[in-house]
Amino acid sequence: MHFASDNSGPAHPKVIEALVAANDGYTMPYGAEPAMQAVRERLRDLFGAPDAAVYLVATGTATNSLLLAAMSRPWQAIYCSEVAHIEEDECGAPEFFTDGSKLALIDAPNAMMTPEALRARIDDTAQGVVHGVQRGPVSITTVTERGTVYSLDQLHALTGVAAEFGLPVHMDGARFANAAASLGCAARDMTRGVTALSFGGTKNGLLGVEAAVIFDPELAWEFELRRKRAGHLFSKHRFLSAQMGAYLEGDLWLDMAGQANAAAARLVAGLKRIPEATVLHTVDANMVYAAFPRAAHRRLREAGAQFYSIGSLDGPGDEAVAGRLVCDWSATDANTDRFLDILAG
Amino acid sequence: MHFASDNSGPAHPKVIEALVAANDGYTMPYGAEPAMQAVRERLRDLFGAPDAAVYLVATGTATNSLLLAAMSRPWQAIYCSEVAHIEEDECGAPEFFTDGSKLALIDAPNAMMTPEALRARIDDTAQGVVHGVQRGPVSITTVTERGTVYSLDQLHALTGVAAEFGLPVHMDGARFANAAASLGCAARDMTRGVTALSFGGTKNGLLGVEAAVIFDPELAWEFELRRKRAGHLFSKHRFLSAQMGAYLEGDLWLDMAGQANAAAARLVAGLKRIPEATVLHTVDANMVYAAFPRAAHRRLREAGAQFYSIGSLDGPGDEAVAGRLVCDWSATDANTDRFLDILAG
Amino acid sequence: MHFASDNSGPAHPKVIEALVAANDGYTMPYGAEPAMQAVRERLRDLFGAPDAAVYLVATGTATNSLLLAAMSRPWQAIYCSEVAHIEEDECGAPEFFTDGSKLALIDAPNAMMTPEALRARIDDTAQGVVHGVQRGPVSITTVTERGTVYSLDQLHALTGVAAEFGLPVHMDGARFANAAASLGCAARDMTRGVTALSFGGTKNGLLGVEAAVIFDPELAWEFELRRKRAGHLFSKHRFLSAQMGAYLEGDLWLDMAGQANAAAARLVAGLKRIPEATVLHTVDANMVYAAFPRAAHRRLREAGAQFYSIGSLDGPGDEAVAGRLVCDWSATDANTDRFLDILAG
Amino acid sequence: MHFASDNSGPAHPKVIEALVAANDGYTMPYGAEPAMQAVRERLRDLFGAPDAAVYLVATGTATNSLLLAAMSRPWQAIYCSEVAHIEEDECGAPEFFTDGSKLALIDAPNAMMTPEALRARIDDTAQGVVHGVQRGPVSITTVTERGTVYSLDQLHALTGVAAEFGLPVHMDGARFANAAASLGCAARDMTRGVTALSFGGTKNGLLGVEAAVIFDPELAWEFELRRKRAGHLFSKHRFLSAQMGAYLEGDLWLDMAGQANAAAARLVAGLKRIPEATVLHTVDANMVYAAFPRAAHRRLREAGAQFYSIGSLDGPGDEAVAGRLVCDWSATDANTDRFLDILAG
Repeated sequence: MHFASDNSGPAHPKVIEALVAANDGYTMPYGAEPAMQAVRERLRDLFGAPDAAVYLVATGTATNSLLLAAMSRPWQAIYCSEVAHIEEDECGAPEFFTDGSKLALIDAPNAMMTPEALRARIDDTAQGVVHGVQRGPVSITTVTERGTVYSLDQLHALTGVAAEFGLPVHMDGARFANAAASLGCAARDMTRGVTALSFGGTKNGLLGVEAAVIFDPELAWEFELRRKRAGHLFSKHRFLSAQMGAYLEGDLWLDMAGQANAAAARLVAGLKRIPEATVLHTVDANMVYAAFPRAAHRRLREAGAQFYSIGSLDGPGDEAVAGRLVCDWSATDANTDRFLDILAG
Repeated sequence: MHFASDNSGPAHPKVIEALVAANDGYTMPYGAEPAMQAVRERLRDLFGAPDAAVYLVATGTATNSLLLAAMSRPWQAIYCSEVAHIEEDECGAPEFFTDGSKLALIDAPNAMMTPEALRARIDDTAQGVVHGVQRGPVSITTVTERGTVYSLDQLHALTGVAAEFGLPVHMDGARFANAAASLGCAARDMTRGVTALSFGGTKNGLLGVEAAVIFDPELAWEFELRRKRAGHLFSKHRFLSAQMGAYLEGDLWLDMAGQANAAAARLVAGLKRIPEATVLHTVDANMVYAAFPRAAHRRLREAGAQFYSIGSLDGPGDEAVAGRLVCDWSATDANTDRFLDILAG
Repeated sequence: MHFASDNSGPAHPKVIEALVAANDGYTMPYGAEPAMQAVRERLRDLFGAPDAAVYLVATGTATNSLLLAAMSRPWQAIYCSEVAHIEEDECGAPEFFTDGSKLALIDAPNAMMTPEALRARIDDTAQGVVHGVQRGPVSITTVTERGTVYSLDQLHALTGVAAEFGLPVHMDGARFANAAASLGCAARDMTRGVTALSFGGTKNGLLGVEAAVIFDPELAWEFELRRKRAGHLFSKHRFLSAQMGAYLEGDLWLDMAGQANAAAARLVAGLKRIPEATVLHTVDANMVYAAFPRAAHRRLREAGAQFYSIGSLDGPGDEAVAGRLVCDWSATDANTDRFLDILAG
Repeated sequence: MHFASDNSGPAHPKVIEALVAANDGYTMPYGAEPAMQAVRERLRDLFGAPDAAVYLVATGTATNSLLLAAMSRPWQAIYCSEVAHIEEDECGAPEFFTDGSKLALIDAPNAMMTPEALRARIDDTAQGVVHGVQRGPVSITTVTERGTVYSLDQLHALTGVAAEFGLPVHMDGARFANAAASLGCAARDMTRGVTALSFGGTKNGLLGVEAAVIFDPELAWEFELRRKRAGHLFSKHRFLSAQMGAYLEGDLWLDMAGQANAAAARLVAGLKRIPEATVLHTVDANMVYAAFPRAAHRRLREAGAQFYSIGSLDGPGDEAVAGRLVCDWSATDANTDRFLDILAG
């Protein structure tokens, strides 16, 4: 019953196999291995972007921060949701990589920015006046930090606002696969109007790899220099490209995301049958926020379940406390059902 | 015939086995997995440092830069050899991580700093006067960038100079294993007087892991924050600790380094038998610098040999050009001998 | 009719006299001149802080940013009001000087943080968990950005919250003199619990000098190094100490601030007599926010009045638009009355 | 007998007069005052550069560092002489402003880089290879740090090397006036091939102002943002433009520099008549390096002379120790002669 995070589960066996297979003799280091060329071509195909620059980075923190740094200058604002991962969970990594940009936070009900709020915040930013920070990139996360997924219309409305102002768009796609599986659309439809994407793998069955897909090739060389300078260029890069290769092969990435989403849907269906439980945000993908009685939190923990409780577990048992439940590709129906049983009491 | 770098070879099968074994179900992320505790204990034992803080980082660039940043302030000098890897090969990573420290370069024949030159350079640094950068950490690399290895006496003389001035000492141990195998001493003898060490694995049979061994536990928390902020904290950290666990098990690290050193010794012995070839620095470990005729460089390349030629290969064939030949744990006698045969012509 | 800012007015004649007098022959550079020693002693007396370190810096942007940088580490939050000058008007200077700290914004009605909101925001900050930024200094501005002045009780409540968490307190005192004149208390009462203060002069009759008064002498040396490194150490420092000397002499600083505050009070009294005008925040010092008809804005501008209109001046003349009116020491009753007359129409 | 530095002397009376005159009523802040427009036009005329962007900054440290930051990216090398002021005397300010560039030091006999050494160092820098820092601006100081002045041919040879590689050129002109007075040429001849110049005033009779003259207008906006962000934009900017206006009026800048140079020449002539004294570098402007007996150093200090002794004054009196003697515009023949008399013993 592991619902703490999609990054505490195992890698997919096919990924491990690819890793083992890659460990054969000598090869060129630093991304010059042939497997990387194949990865690059596949991602260009997937996104319909024959000129895109593609790089692999081992962590999401670094991928997003490097992209933002390459897309902005230190005196610019980076527009993002008030609960964006880059704001709340990175110990200031974007500020470090950008040499001190300012994150400009946008009100975001259910973690979703509205075009109106985004436009108003950009409008409100000094431009051409030296006293305030200047306008910079817009950063969009989907799946969002509350488990919602922007519809294509919503995405295009946001990228449209950025385009009105001539600003580049960053997409934090740590859970891009889960969003794509949820929308059932082509990947390339999600990145229309996007300047650069982090295409996540670590939370979805890899050991630790994200792809930086840079649709504006002008940013490529700066990204390469920043990656090296930040210690994120791997000499034995073949072990990154092997993972990403397996991930893309036969759409394994979509299959795994689909499994994770299905597990979350099962969880939601079960929660809705439990009167004491309330699902807190629309669950579009693999992340569930729900409130249920403190006593149930305690019961689940005693039974070994792992998940985040957002609030103190001390106090009256019937008071509701929120919990965050994340499913990964390896979640099983049996575990989900057991979790629900214990929760129901 | 791959002598380009010890980072273009494969990982050791035992390391791959450990990685596969680690991919079992759920585990705690971010280094809280039990395997990391075991790694920590082993490294503390190895270095006789029960209080040392131990962290894993996936690249050498990041490990050294994070350590230097935790050990210094932006307005300090970092003393290192004029050919130090941190000066020449990191695209300014130390400057990025430290927010603009200055590397103060020390003359270093055969890439080895002398205590006298180090002391003179430190003496020459402003201290307590605001106009110049202030004194900061001393950084020592062994195996050095020219393949030499400091003797214990030489090491202790350098750390002694740092101690005279109350300065911390950083050891860049990207090839620490090769140095230890060369000296045949206890690892802990090499780190006497050292404040923090990067204990390399990537160049010696791992996929991509170095241990940051911090002998001064006061620096631990800052290191953790800097690691996160730089995107170098892995969520699926088990795949780092599995590698390092296998590396330490049964002294695999020393065995692999011993093999690499032996391969280099065989290369040197062979080169000495070839009149047109000259070995350029003392070869103490697994890295050989040698000059040999341009024609031989060209012949070797045509035969598929991989190594760095330091100078143009156009021009008269009998003119000597330097080459850098690095051996890893997987080097074979057959390949070495074939290389020598082709070189001899 | 100049109400655009207290930094567009002239310096006080006594300050100019002191400057002229200081231009006499040779003297020690970089703050070693005797006049600086006198300034230091006077400020220590004024604040009842015999151990305080005192430095002069030519701009407020730099003084506040240098202080914040010396008081924090890059991975810390700096708590400040949502409309703090350091957030809105410095083009990200604090982020530049601190190497990427994050400003954590506190709701602040009338630009005044409440102890409750501050405590909640600090409570909400990760501490000891590596994923979020850590707790750092609290920054308080008084006179606030909306012209209000914290009472002593309010100030001590805020510094008390910082003390609960063991956090240092920065006071942005760009208009400290106006606040002190408004409160009528001893300067030292305002800085109880404050770690470091920028004691403003530029907006109050100097050419361009602020004093950094650092009550925690442990921060002094770092401040000196940062000041030099940021290009804010003046060689001909005598021209800074001469200004500050004149400012402190006979409490000229308080006299000038009192004149500016009186001018604002006259403005407020006049505005209250005009039915179409509304004073928007409590006016405690020398800065007035008021709404009045667009037509009046236009009339005033045509008559040469200078002030900020916060909103478009195009459109129906009877619609109210906010204006910011700032008085400096040299404001005259005649000008104020003329402004009011034109506004009244 | 003040020869410690040209920044410990007084400002010229005409500069003070202009400052007093500028203190008249209200004016636009932040460089929008009419006097700044006049300064801009004059400097454009002086340098024959109608499109140049011109800004005023109060310190040389900041002017040079801001220019270098605007001209480079963090992963670039800045080429400069091994004894460049930006390397030795700024506490790492260039590294701070550039977010961690690396200064690449060039051998420089008499503090003068040769085109050959510069070309070799640039050639030696990685370009297009991610592992090393990339090529960046060339920084030239004249008057150099040892008191020599590049001839026009020497200057053009250096800027020519930069042009070969397409690199921008920064000129540190803290003592540009003294160099121009020494060469007797038009100012614009000295800046042929230069991208941006710091035109010094502080060491030559101002209170504290340098002009940043940016010949490439593409860099202007970035410079403005960096200046603000670094706290170097003055609100009461009129007091900077007043100084620079007086400086340029009737070529006061050249007259003062000529006086300073003449004083140094008198010093040199006197030193040459003293057998125990040796002039150490060619004295082209207002800075003299000379060796003379320790006893003479001690004698001079006892008589109140101020200058830098480069070496210990303890020990045998007849041993020669170097001294640095700098003359400013206000040096008098009487003082110079008295100094020489005491030195001669």
